Amino acid sequence: MKKKDIVKLLQDYKQGTLSEEEAAAKIAEVPFEEMQFAEIDHHRELRQGMPEVIYAAGKTPEQVRDIFASLYSHSDGNLLATRASREHYDKVLEKVPEAEYDETARLIYLDRDRSLQRDENHQILILTAGTSDVPVAEEARLTAYLFGNVVKTCYDCGVAGIHRLFAHLPEIKAANVIIVIAGMEGALASVVGGLTDKPVIAVPTSVGYGASFKGVAALLSMLNSCAMGVSVVNIDNGFGAGALASKINKLR
Amino acid sequence: MKKKDIVKLLQDYKQGTLSEEEAAAKIAEVPFEEMQFAEIDHHRELRQGMPEVIYAAGKTPEQVRDIFASLYSHSDGNLLATRASREHYDKVLEKVPEAEYDETARLIYLDRDRSLQRDENHQILILTAGTSDVPVAEEARLTAYLFGNVVKTCYDCGVAGIHRLFAHLPEIKAANVIIVIAGMEGALASVVGGLTDKPVIAVPTSVGYGASFKGVAALLSMLNSCAMGVSVVNIDNGFGAGALASKINKLR
Amino acid sequence: MKKKDIVKLLQDYKQGTLSEEEAAAKIAEVPFEEMQFAEIDHHRELRQGMPEVIYAAGKTPEQVRDIFASLYSHSDGNLLATRASREHYDKVLEKVPEAEYDETARLIYLDRDRSLQRDENHQILILTAGTSDVPVAEEARLTAYLFGNVVKTCYDCGVAGIHRLFAHLPEIKAANVIIVIAGMEGALASVVGGLTDKPVIAVPTSVGYGASFKGVAALLSMLNSCAMGVSVVNIDNGFGAGALASKINKLR
Amino acid sequence: MKKKDIVKLLQDYKQGTLSEEEAAAKIAEVPFEEMQFAEIDHHRELRQGMPEVIYAAGKTPEQVRDIFASLYSHSDGNLLATRASREHYDKVLEKVPEAEYDETARLIYLDRDRSLQRDENHQILILTAGTSDVPVAEEARLTAYLFGNVVKTCYDCGVAGIHRLFAHLPEIKAANVIIVIAGMEGALASVVGGLTDKPVIAVPTSVGYGASFKGVAALLSMLNSCAMGVSVVNIDNGFGAGALASKINKLR
Amino acid sequence: MKKKDIVKLLQDYKQGTLSEEEAAAKIAEVPFEEMQFAEIDHHRELRQGMPEVIYAAGKTPEQVRDIFASLYSHSDGNLLATRASREHYDKVLEKVPEAEYDETARLIYLDRDRSLQRDENHQILILTAGTSDVPVAEEARLTAYLFGNVVKTCYDCGVAGIHRLFAHLPEIKAANVIIVIAGMEGALASVVGGLTDKPVIAVPTSVGYGASFKGVAALLSMLNSCAMGVSVVNIDNGFGAGALASKINKLR
Amino acid sequence: MKKKDIVKLLQDYKQGTLSEEEAAAKIAEVPFEEMQFAEIDHHRELRQGMPEVIYAAGKTPEQVRDIFASLYSHSDGNLLATRASREHYDKVLEKVPEAEYDETARLIYLDRDRSLQRDENHQILILTAGTSDVPVAEEARLTAYLFGNVVKTCYDCGVAGIHRLFAHLPEIKAANVIIVIAGMEGALASVVGGLTDKPVIAVPTSVGYGASFKGVAALLSMLNSCAMGVSVVNIDNGFGAGALASKINKLR
Amino acid sequence: MKKKDIVKLLQDYKQGTLSEEEAAAKIAEVPFEEMQFAEIDHHRELRQGMPEVIYAAGKTPEQVRDIFASLYSHSDGNLLATRASREHYDKVLEKVPEAEYDETARLIYLDRDRSLQRDENHQILILTAGTSDVPVAEEARLTAYLFGNVVKTCYDCGVAGIHRLFAHLPEIKAANVIIVIAGMEGALASVVGGLTDKPVIAVPTSVGYGASFKGVAALLSMLNSCAMGVSVVNIDNGFGAGALASKINKLR
Amino acid sequence: MKKKDIVKLLQDYKQGTLSEEEAAAKIAEVPFEEMQFAEIDHHRELRQGMPEVIYAAGKTPEQVRDIFASLYSHSDGNLLATRASREHYDKVLEKVPEAEYDETARLIYLDRDRSLQRDENHQILILTAGTSDVPVAEEARLTAYLFGNVVKTCYDCGVAGIHRLFAHLPEIKAANVIIVIAGMEGALASVVGGLTDKPVIAVPTSVGYGASFKGVAALLSMLNSCAMGVSVVNIDNGFGAGALASKINKLR
Repeated sequence: MKKKDIVKLLQDYKQGTLSEEEAAAKIAEVPFEEMQFAEIDHHRELRQGMPEVIYAAGKTPEQVRDIFASLYSHSDGNLLATRASREHYDKVLEKVPEAEYDETARLIYLDRDRSLQRDENHQILILTAGTSDVPVAEEARLTAYLFGNVVKTCYDCGVAGIHRLFAHLPEIKAANVIIVIAGMEGALASVVGGLTDKPVIAVPTSVGYGASFKGVAALLSMLNSCAMGVSVVNIDNGFGAGALASKINKLR
Repeated sequence: MKKKDIVKLLQDYKQGTLSEEEAAAKIAEVPFEEMQFAEIDHHRELRQGMPEVIYAAGKTPEQVRDIFASLYSHSDGNLLATRASREHYDKVLEKVPEAEYDETARLIYLDRDRSLQRDENHQILILTAGTSDVPVAEEARLTAYLFGNVVKTCYDCGVAGIHRLFAHLPEIKAANVIIVIAGMEGALASVVGGLTDKPVIAVPTSVGYGASFKGVAALLSMLNSCAMGVSVVNIDNGFGAGALASKINKLR
Repeated sequence: MKKKDIVKLLQDYKQGTLSEEEAAAKIAEVPFEEMQFAEIDHHRELRQGMPEVIYAAGKTPEQVRDIFASLYSHSDGNLLATRASREHYDKVLEKVPEAEYDETARLIYLDRDRSLQRDENHQILILTAGTSDVPVAEEARLTAYLFGNVVKTCYDCGVAGIHRLFAHLPEIKAANVIIVIAGMEGALASVVGGLTDKPVIAVPTSVGYGASFKGVAALLSMLNSCAMGVSVVNIDNGFGAGALASKINKLR
Repeated sequence: MKKKDIVKLLQDYKQGTLSEEEAAAKIAEVPFEEMQFAEIDHHRELRQGMPEVIYAAGKTPEQVRDIFASLYSHSDGNLLATRASREHYDKVLEKVPEAEYDETARLIYLDRDRSLQRDENHQILILTAGTSDVPVAEEARLTAYLFGNVVKTCYDCGVAGIHRLFAHLPEIKAANVIIVIAGMEGALASVVGGLTDKPVIAVPTSVGYGASFKGVAALLSMLNSCAMGVSVVNIDNGFGAGALASKINKLR
Repeated sequence: MKKKDIVKLLQDYKQGTLSEEEAAAKIAEVPFEEMQFAEIDHHRELRQGMPEVIYAAGKTPEQVRDIFASLYSHSDGNLLATRASREHYDKVLEKVPEAEYDETARLIYLDRDRSLQRDENHQILILTAGTSDVPVAEEARLTAYLFGNVVKTCYDCGVAGIHRLFAHLPEIKAANVIIVIAGMEGALASVVGGLTDKPVIAVPTSVGYGASFKGVAALLSMLNSCAMGVSVVNIDNGFGAGALASKINKLR
Repeated sequence: MKKKDIVKLLQDYKQGTLSEEEAAAKIAEVPFEEMQFAEIDHHRELRQGMPEVIYAAGKTPEQVRDIFASLYSHSDGNLLATRASREHYDKVLEKVPEAEYDETARLIYLDRDRSLQRDENHQILILTAGTSDVPVAEEARLTAYLFGNVVKTCYDCGVAGIHRLFAHLPEIKAANVIIVIAGMEGALASVVGGLTDKPVIAVPTSVGYGASFKGVAALLSMLNSCAMGVSVVNIDNGFGAGALASKINKLR
Repeated sequence: MKKKDIVKLLQDYKQGTLSEEEAAAKIAEVPFEEMQFAEIDHHRELRQGMPEVIYAAGKTPEQVRDIFASLYSHSDGNLLATRASREHYDKVLEKVPEAEYDETARLIYLDRDRSLQRDENHQILILTAGTSDVPVAEEARLTAYLFGNVVKTCYDCGVAGIHRLFAHLPEIKAANVIIVIAGMEGALASVVGGLTDKPVIAVPTSVGYGASFKGVAALLSMLNSCAMGVSVVNIDNGFGAGALASKINKLR
Repeated sequence: MKKKDIVKLLQDYKQGTLSEEEAAAKIAEVPFEEMQFAEIDHHRELRQGMPEVIYAAGKTPEQVRDIFASLYSHSDGNLLATRASREHYDKVLEKVPEAEYDETARLIYLDRDRSLQRDENHQILILTAGTSDVPVAEEARLTAYLFGNVVKTCYDCGVAGIHRLFAHLPEIKAANVIIVIAGMEGALASVVGGLTDKPVIAVPTSVGYGASFKGVAALLSMLNSCAMGVSVVNIDNGFGAGALASKINKLR
């Protein structure tokens, strides 16, 4: 029930083509779901500047292509398809030739939103423990970038060679939000958490073997971090970390 | 090596009581740990306004009393002892009679920092699924308050009666950061995550029985949230959520 | 916004004390949550005849007493407080002297709803594997009874002495819904599931030791039942099984 | 020992070709297993209208073909082979050319039973959280259809965009039994359980990654649902949910 | 339907007081459950010489007393109540003053069956890794003894001091069945399994700490034994091991 | 140190070519490991009639071929290579053309030991719950046969259709040792355990899906069996069950 | 068979009171277990200087007293009873008044071995992450001391405040073996492992809550340490770490 | 800030081109990270003789080639790339033709360091339980060799045939450090730990099936070893064991 419909109802009532009883009933019956949509649409405005996101895993290339193309024509913002394979990308190209693909991050994306203002004074920093964590980090980086942030990265600064981490103290101090990505024992999150007063988003990765149990060791380690200000997202969830970092980074 | 020591060194060198070789050696030997402390102290200034925190669990009442009293006299900020029992509190009272105790939140605290400016336009909202989650919520609430935030709470609005949650949509919209606290299946985090664009900190609680496995069901549920912008802290970790929410809430 | 409020709004508008703009705005702003409550109240009518339920665990005796007393005076239906201790009961008695207590089932209840029509042709049958499963079974039985069902029970008919189960084939055939309650290896659910075409609700119990892991062995066993028509509720969740059985049993 | 055998025995005894001793012994020796079969056959009649089901996984295409063909000629009802691959289907076609195959649901089936009366007033509703849950949902839908039910579906209405779910409130109210299918955190089951008084069958799916542990997170979430009236079947067990929903839906 | 009932039926039929139709129907309707009992009773004879067993855990002292007393008067065999506390025993003494109690093994028992012939040539040997495993071992020993076996024991011969085990090689060679009881890493089962050709029953115990997880480490170790001829019972299940060892030891 | 060496030593000593001191020292130094081998060799005689066994998994076809060929020429008994692929078999054939291969059981074997006396009065019975359990069952069956036993099998008699099991009561009564093989919920072990007084060896299989966790559900179910006389071997360990059953079956 | 027995045997043989046949048989029959003990006794000499150790947990105070007293009189070395309560100690005092008790470390001990030479150039360093880890650390410290080592400790230097750790770099460099004790996320082990080239023994502690799972998080973290040279002992196993550190520290 | 920079600073200050204030500030600002590197470089000298190590898993062949080549030209020590495939090796060969490859150990290596002095009196012994453990053992062996140690191996001496282990007692006694590698139940670590006073490094392997859970059973077994002096590294972590053994073996 859009505003013009309400006005029409009021006028019909005033003119007597709608009885009081009828008008009251119509108002009381405003379909629940429409209210919801109104509710949500209002929300949507708040989301201005956020990319539309497609979770490609479990969807066929054709499905991703069609959703991507549909979002392409119905919005002006950035577009993002996560966990996408090259097969997905090839199909998307059929309908959206400007689409780009980052193989490491497994993201199909369209970087077209000129309204985004990336603020150099509010940087997101991404740290990884090792080079094997880079794909997850790149997913986080590109996500945060497409959400309109300045993103810095320092890869391969795990705690076993702690001087490599300390070489990046200036970046740590400069950051507004920090994403720490680590597999194996995930100790980097605690050490970084102790070096900053900014919020730290920890991403366990499935990197490791044996008793790392595909990221469980790092996940537990991060959940139990003795440092204040560390929270955790799902294993390998670079996209989630990037999106959350953006939400936090845009608070004023 | 404080500044006056460095100046002294330079003067000794100029006056010739210290050879160039000796002076260079001394500078090169600046004890690593002191540099560290300097580094950290610099940090400390950034932390201004943050309470000093004692983790009381696993410490004797006497230990907590002495640390509390020591912090009491060496700082002007708020003080906070988490996971504290009444036995801890009774001992603390011996040396710090102004200390207060919140039995539900299991916090001993001193709310004395007049420099804190609680900003009504940056509110932290705490939602719980049930009444059994309240102790964890109170720990988060009091923590965030002592860290200098305006905190609002809506308890007992779990998803099984979703109208109770929706009655609080205005508070959800008004919040800058949201803490969602839930045991059992922890579904509240996902629903709230879908209703807001602000960061959501999810706290699984050990509330529940059987296959809730003391919070594991809620923890996994929250880690796998289909909503964007949700991160998770340890089971029952109300303090951690409150401190992190404060860090995020103070970003500008 | 109740109906009279809507009528008032319409009249104000007609009389000109409310401009069209204002009236449209007010209608558009019908508080979301009120709509929700309306929605829910409609639901409530459907729930007619269902007892009001309080989950007592994690609530103080005073809290349970006050909620119980409040429901007592605001409804005419049966009342039920689950996982209640004798301390809870003693407090409830202060305000509701007619309340009864079943120590085995840990239920405080009020059996006063005379509108309930228990249908002998739609029986719920509860089977347990051993005598240690009886407390969970009694919780299910009394719940289903207070929800308005005829409930039959056959306790201690585990599969290791399968003749004890077969002696109850007539009851199994006569039942409309069957609840199977078992700890240890939980095999009873599969055997019963193979003997009936009616829905079987399986309740794993924490009975057992060693590698039963407080009900996990039975839970997994029941989830993997090779029999068609078996579903599972949480470990020791007698109340949940009783309530669900009632919902199913009342379908026509 | 069929009825004519018993009559023969009685007649032999009357005519003296069988002594009393011999007759009594024969009766006492009625083979246990035959009684059992009689027992079961009586059951079978109750099952009238239920399809014959083959679990194809772990069987060779030849085995499935032969069993399918055998059931085809010995019964008039619907036939169903679950977890079947296209290889299975190709073989089945050799002997039963009318057989159909649903690739998404992985079901080979024969929809020939004209005696089934699908009752529009007793609908089964299937809800999924995401599009990745659709294969499990289709398995449930086709199963319930072949068992003789009217089945409605609403896919992709997970709780992170709760308005999508609320748009389907009319279908939820119209349903007699509801199947909720969700992976990741499985929160949909609790939300739906709070919106209906009908039984809800929850199916966790292995959709998700990281700490979803192939459906375990959703499984635990659903078992711990705070909503009344929710029970759970095995991970990805669409067939089980469909068959159980049918059993419940046919109760009168 | 006992034999005399069948004979009566036949005679009634012959005399015409029962029509052929009626007689055939009655025979066809021989209650399923009675057949079962007959079946079982036949079994019972095979069980001759086996003690009657009560699982006391989860039963009240009064319940154990009454069952014990009932078995006492209805049989002549040995009696055994497992997982029994002294409270259980005190109550049993009220009705069965001859009952004995073994506090270590937590067994109430009556050793009165003079028909048992303990065969010195068929010995059961019980080995434990440490002294903490002794309560479980004593439960196994006394069980096997009351079932009518000669039982030998060698306690505290864990593999970390393997000479202690080797000192018992003669007993190992002399045994017909061996029970190995160990907590911690449970390695004793594999070593013994490699030294004998007789069946080895491994009992993991909950002895240990940390990552022993209350017997899980030993359980997994024993299940994965590289030695041929080792099978496993539940954690701490001394009774089960003793009863199974007796079953095996009596085979001829 | 063989006997002739000892005699030589004694003679040298008597003849004085070896001093008392030297002789005593030599005896004291009898190499530990040789004693051990003697010990073991003595054992070996007890093992007479047992096949030599090679665990093929993790060995190259060439390795299996060479070990098989070596055992072939150094013994007269049966030979057995478990978990063997066709590639293993093809290589074995190069050196031992009489070797046979059972693809279902994944066993390469040589059935040549004419000294084995299979005793019809001591039968091993193998029961499976479903047809998917057959490969494990066949591994057990062929193993037990090659160890010199009469083996009977009843496949596909799971508890969901319990009449199929009861049709085999005569075989159950006739057996001396019973192997029960089941995946999913593994309930068959408990039901069979309640129907027999003979030892039952339970083998969980990795058959199933979802929360069966590759045999863990069945494993836990079997470990927690409420029936007396059931022990368990590792998941899918058909060989272990067959070898243990043989050890038990040969006891007299 | 001690040396004099062998000499006696040889002499008897030479004198003819023992035939060659008899002598050879006796030598061949040297009881296996005695050889073993000899073997072990030889070992024992290597162990010179190691304390005798009693594991008190699971033993009665009387048992601990008697074993302690027995070791007291049969050796001259240090004595140590681990996991001992004050009740154990009170009993030990009855027979060994010089025994001491360390309540934090839960050790009863006797520090009397004057032959131990504690080498200042081979120090063991014990680091803990927090103060709650101190009891485990003290168990390790006192153990290593009683085994004859110089032990240094730095408690409460967890990674969240990494400057506290770096203040101890000189001690880290001075150490020959390092024990790192930490609960929660156990990250200290990796950081220390990266700062030293000496072996690091990591001890996870059960300190923490929620998803620390009583030390499992720290255990997994330490097993997956990205630093080279870290190995792990059981949760809370301070004694094990101390004893192993001593073994390593004494290598030359 | 290298030494010449410090000298320059001092001279500038003395000459007055730098004020006291400025000089003091510069010294205080000595970049943290440079100090760190200095610190670390000092460390590096201690590491003399240790090979450079690349973890190849998760790196592309090109990446491994380039790092390998870079280390090749910048150091004189041995080089080692772990978890390397033949594809990695083929690429490495393009730039470092002298590189060798061990397919079993999956190591690319360069054995060129002539400064290493392998000490025959300090041997590392590697024992495996079975032949399937050999790849992990070879990784440990080659690692320890390239680190400059004399390494001995005894493969396939698992506890089920304990005489095979005892045949190697001389090697066990001769060793300075022992690595025990075992899958399945991992019992070998405890037995060896009981036979030696030297440190034992236990490596669980993922060898086994069913309830071995890819090495978890062996891991738990080893962590719970009842033998003193056993510590554990990650599942299949042969490199870690070899490097740690080398660290221990080089202590004097």
